[in-house]
Parts: sequence; C-alpha cells; structure tokens
Amino acid sequence: MSRLFMFEKPLGMRDTLPELYEKKHRVRSLMENAMKRWGYQFIETPALEYYETVGTASAILDTQLFKLLDKEGHTLVLRLEMTTPIARVAASRLLQDDLPLRLAYAANVFRAQQREGGRPAEFEQIGVECINDETVSSDGEVISLLVSSLREAGLRHFQVSIGHASFAQELFLQILGTDERANSLRRFLYEKNYVGYREHVNSLSLSSIDKQRLLQFLELRGGEEVIGMALDIIENEQGKLAIMQLKELWDVVNDYKVQDQVKFDFTLVSHMSYYSGILFEVYADKVGFPIGNGGRYSLIEKFGKKASATGFAVRIDRLLESLGDMTEETTTNCILFSLERRKEAFRLAEKMHEEGTRVVLQDINGVKNLDAFTKKFADTTYLIGKAGKEPADE
Amino acid sequence: MSRLFMFEKPLGMRDTLPELYEKKHRVRSLMENAMKRWGYQFIETPALEYYETVGTASAILDTQLFKLLDKEGHTLVLRLEMTTPIARVAASRLLQDDLPLRLAYAANVFRAQQREGGRPAEFEQIGVECINDETVSSDGEVISLLVSSLREAGLRHFQVSIGHASFAQELFLQILGTDERANSLRRFLYEKNYVGYREHVNSLSLSSIDKQRLLQFLELRGGEEVIGMALDIIENEQGKLAIMQLKELWDVVNDYKVQDQVKFDFTLVSHMSYYSGILFEVYADKVGFPIGNGGRYSLIEKFGKKASATGFAVRIDRLLESLGDMTEETTTNCILFSLERRKEAFRLAEKMHEEGTRVVLQDINGVKNLDAFTKKFADTTYLIGKAGKEPADE
Repeated sequence: MSRLFMFEKPLGMRDTLPELYEKKHRVRSLMENAMKRWGYQFIETPALEYYETVGTASAILDTQLFKLLDKEGHTLVLRLEMTTPIARVAASRLLQDDLPLRLAYAANVFRAQQREGGRPAEFEQIGVECINDETVSSDGEVISLLVSSLREAGLRHFQVSIGHASFAQELFLQILGTDERANSLRRFLYEKNYVGYREHVNSLSLSSIDKQRLLQFLELRGGEEVIGMALDIIENEQGKLAIMQLKELWDVVNDYKVQDQVKFDFTLVSHMSYYSGILFEVYADKVGFPIGNGGRYSLIEKFGKKASATGFAVRIDRLLESLGDMTEETTTNCILFSLERRKEAFRLAEKMHEEGTRVVLQDINGVKNLDAFTKKFADTTYLIGKAGKEPADE
Repeated sequence: MSRLFMFEKPLGMRDTLPELYEKKHRVRSLMENAMKRWGYQFIETPALEYYETVGTASAILDTQLFKLLDKEGHTLVLRLEMTTPIARVAASRLLQDDLPLRLAYAANVFRAQQREGGRPAEFEQIGVECINDETVSSDGEVISLLVSSLREAGLRHFQVSIGHASFAQELFLQILGTDERANSLRRFLYEKNYVGYREHVNSLSLSSIDKQRLLQFLELRGGEEVIGMALDIIENEQGKLAIMQLKELWDVVNDYKVQDQVKFDFTLVSHMSYYSGILFEVYADKVGFPIGNGGRYSLIEKFGKKASATGFAVRIDRLLESLGDMTEETTTNCILFSLERRKEAFRLAEKMHEEGTRVVLQDINGVKNLDAFTKKFADTTYLIGKAGKEPADE
C-alpha cells in the first residue's frame, strides 16, 4: 500500500484506545443498567439502511449522509441516528397489539464531515424511545430517566432545558401570519443567535405590543414562574395547550424528584423536524454542545402506524468529555515464566483468574525488553529457572 | 416514502429484537470478562477505513466489500474483519516500545451479500490479538483463551482443529515442485472437498510413494499420535519445523488443561492469505460453519513494523446458534398508576429500582388494552383511584 495511506483513517474517523474504551464501557453499562431497571428493552438495527426508508425520514442534512449503492442500484445510507430505524422496527414488528412500548439502544451513528474540524464522523448514542403512550407522564418518565441515568453515570453538573415544538410555532404564526415569516424568525432561535433575533424583530413592521411579545418570548427561560409569563403572551389555543402540557410536565418531574436538574426554555427549537410536542436538550459542564436531546415526535406515522413517541439520545463522547478524568484504574498483574515452570505459572494464573484478578501470562522468551515490559503491571511474579529457585538477579 | 421500501432492510441486514439482544449481551459479557482477566485490553476502530489501508490487506473477496467514495474521491470500505484495523493501530501507535501487546475487540463487521441466502451482511465478532510475541507459548495462550472464553460463555460441545499454514504448503512443494501445482491441490482442502482431492492426486503423474504421501496427508487428523505420522511424510526442513511447533503447542495446551477440546487437523488451510504459522478453526454442535477461527499472521509487517501476531475471532451469531435456548429469563414488573397516586407509584418504583428490580411505571391513561398490557409482566401493582383504596375490580 502507498505510504500516504498506511496509517490514515477517513475524515472524522477515530480509534478508541484501551483507557478510553474502558471508561466508555463503564459509563455505557451504568446508563444501560438504569434503562433496564426502568423496564426499557434494548434492540439493535443494521448500520446500513435504505435511503428511501430512513435517510429521507431523518431530516438530517443530506450532505452529512454516507451513501452507497447496492448491487441493484438502490441507495443505502449509514444510519445517522437511531430514532428512525427504531420507528421502522416498532411499526413493522412490535406495535401489532397497540400497547405502550419501551425500547432502548446503544449504537454508533454516522455523519459525514465536510472538512477536518475535530468533529467525529462516527460516534455512539445511547437512548430510549417510549412509544405509543400519549400521556405527559411518558414525557416526564423519559426526562426523569435521562436525569437518573446521567446521575448514575457519575455526572453531577448538568441541566435539562425543556421547551415545546409548537409554542414558538404558534406564537410566531399568531403574530407574523405566515409559515414563511415564522420560519425566518425561527432560524435565529435554532442558531441561538438572540442578537440577530432582536434585530430581526425590530426590523419588522408590527404593532408595538406584538414586538413586545416577541421580545418577551426570549425571556421565557427559568422555573415554574415562566408558565404564567408564557400564558400572558400567547392567545392561540394550540399555544395554550402546549403551556398546559409543560405545566403538567413540571408536576411530573417534581414527583420524580429531578426538578433541580430541569428548567424551561421556551426558545428551544430543534433541527429535527419530526418533533411535535415537548422537546429538550441537556447541557453539562465543560462541553459547548448539548450532550443529549430528545422530545415527542410523530415519526412513526410515516411508517403507517398511528402512534406518537417520546425519547432521548445521549452522545457518549460528549458525556465522557464532561465527566473528565475518572481515574478508577484497573490493575493488571503479570506472571513471567520460563518453560521449566510453565505448568506452575499456569496453575497460579488460573487461581488468580478465578478470583477475578487480571493477570497476563508471559513467556520470558517472548519479551525483548524486560524492564519496560514489567513496568506496565502493578505486580510481576517471576517463575523462571528450576522450580523452587528464584533467579539470582530478582 | 414508497410502500415498497417502508419496512425493508438492505440484503442480509437484520434487526436484533430484545430477547436475542439480551442473550447476545450476556454471552459477549462473559467472553469479554474472560479476555480481560487474561490481561487483554479492548480497543475500537472506525467502521469505515480507506480501501487502500485495510481493504487490500484483508484478502477477503473484493465483491464482498461495501465500498463508497468520500468527498475527495478516495474509496472507503466498511471493515470486514478486525485483524487488519488492529494491525494498523498497533503498528502506528502501540508498538513503539517493541513489547508484546494483548488487544481485544467486540465489533460488527460487514460482508456484502450477492443474493438472499440467509447469510448476514453485518455480524459481530469478538476476538483477541496477541502481538509481537513470537513464542509458541503465545499461540497456546490464544487457543487456550479461546477454549476458556467459550466454556465461560456456556458452550459445552466444541472442538478446536489445529493445523499449520506452512505444512501443507511445504509438503505440496516438496512433491509437486511449483506453487501453481501446490495451489490447485490446496484449493480442494480449502473447499473441504476430499473426494476431489483424492481424484486429483490420482490423476497426477507421480511416483507411487509420493501419491501415497499425499493421500496419507488426508489422515493427519487426531491427537498427539498425528505428529509422528506427519514426520514420516515430510522431508522438507520448513515442514519439519512446522511439526515441531505443533508438538510444542500440544504440550502448552496440555499444561493449560484444554487438550480435551483440541485436536490436530493438518489439512486445515485458510482463505485468509495472511496466516503464516499455526492456524485453527472451532466447530460446535448444531452449526455447519466454524464459529470461530484464528492463527499466526505477519500482516503487521504490511504496516511497516517487523512483528508477527496470533489471534482468534468468534462469530457471536454462530455461537448463539450453537448455545441454543438459554432460557434465563429476566423478569420485569409493572406499577400501573392513576394521576392521584402518581407520587406514591414513583416512590415505590424508586425503591424497587434501588433493589435492582426491573419495573415499568405506567400511567393508566396511556394504555388502551389493559389486560394485554399487564400480561407482559411477571407482576403488576395497581395504584389507582384515591390513596389507600384498591379499585373494586382488582
């Protein structure tokens, strides 16, 4: 192979070396255990799907898709999130009896990168979907499980911001009249460009009371008190319904005792066009991007079943970044043997393995630099030379 | 989306539903734990690699590759095994100090299917690579770890067949003279077509003693006694060296006490062209294909480091097939609540979660068919109506 490519990986692709792998594994296990205790069942879907099936439903930018052609000329894509594949499985195989369904996953997803910018093109998401239960209780359950599982993973400082997909939409329609005008304003929120939002509002020819409402809207961030403020600026019935759902949600998360980690942010909008109700993002210390997000969506209807669902996904890489150093070291010992004492070495290793100790068994003839090798272990036992006789230099 | 594609998955792609997922997870964990106790460190590599880096080195049929182009026009492939990516990582980042290295992985690999034939296009392999230790001890370690980890996973009836990449090669060269003629005979072994092999041998113009040797070669399957038989038919020094390595290996696996699960099969050849020494396959009850295989290879030299390695890979799907029904059921309970008693329901669930019980919390308003729903759980607690009062019909 050419020298150029020998050690290269495609843009945004990464290797996970042992230390990080162990951390990742531990954090994933802790979250999985929480999800299982709450009765969520894990499933796995293929890495490749038909573009027509999940690519078009996902609403992620088309340029972020890894696409390929199969032998029949159909376009395949590497999955870019898990909600759509799970909607496919639920609709086709698991919703026959029309019951609530609690599913979970831990899987790598793929987003093609345009240029080297430190963003991974493959990363792991762990998440749940609570399907076919329309109650606010199930939104509350999912948010509370999000908080619980993150706490379980060891995360201390984080905040779930909760909004509603239809509140901003209804308020903007009420004031601006058209979807098009609503969407241009909405884009500032998506980019979290509040200065741009204010300038845009001020440039519009609106009554001062309407301008006031659109500017007050930016203040709708905080605790329970925000509910009343929101009611003051909306007139639309759909918008009021959204507020009532958020009020009920507040009671649910209080009953779950996770309210300290939760606040409202009515300015929250999502790039995922399939969200239809309550939606949320999680922010944690030391990470500029949300470590997770979720909400209620009606995506399953695209697969022919009348059911909505609510769920969340957490990015393991960002969670690990926020957790920082967790120096819970795993110690490994070593038994270094020469052939005469191989059997003795194996019996000792067997005993230690049975006790759950990590032990490397190493034939001394396989090591060129003994000092450098033994330095890698917490403890090294030498079984070298004739039995019962330790070598003079040890 | 078109009706046609709504529920379809690409050829050979599968969903893993909860029951199978749990089994898979349990079996993987048991094997991982064994590998970790033996001091192997897990790593992860990207699903996509440059074709030039791992595609050409892997020696799997080109038609089995999932290929795509990146924005710069380079060909990428979905990894089709883990040995080559691990060789890349080891050579580029982990072999600087020239020490033995023990790595492990559990990862999905991809093989494009030509037509629907029940073969998966994506499946999981779990395996280890013991790198930069040339001793037969390390071949023995890898084979013994293979046996131990399979036993740990619950597998009872299986057999590891051990051969040597250079024995058949050297014998055939000794008798047939050219690589080309050796390879045509070798192909019958790869296809395990022993009738074809015999016919081919009989059709060759050879001395009767050479024909006899080539036919006796087929009998080189069994225990320690095979070693002597093999020595009788080989004259070539390289071939004799191969036998001496297998003899030493026999002593090692005896010292590891795994000899009952091991036998020799000198007729074993591999489609993986990178094997250079001892090689092996594992067969288990109820599965027509090997559930795993491995051997010593010099692939790392392609990445510019002078080091050989030995390793194995087990296919989780085939292992599960051989394990058959392991009805170790996980029980999940349910708490069904109405809003008045939500808080009480949450406290009860919290207590049960802390005890490690799996409990689903379900708002009764979210369920259309109560009987069908509660039937899914081992036990259902009803917290409905006013506190302290059970509903009359329960």
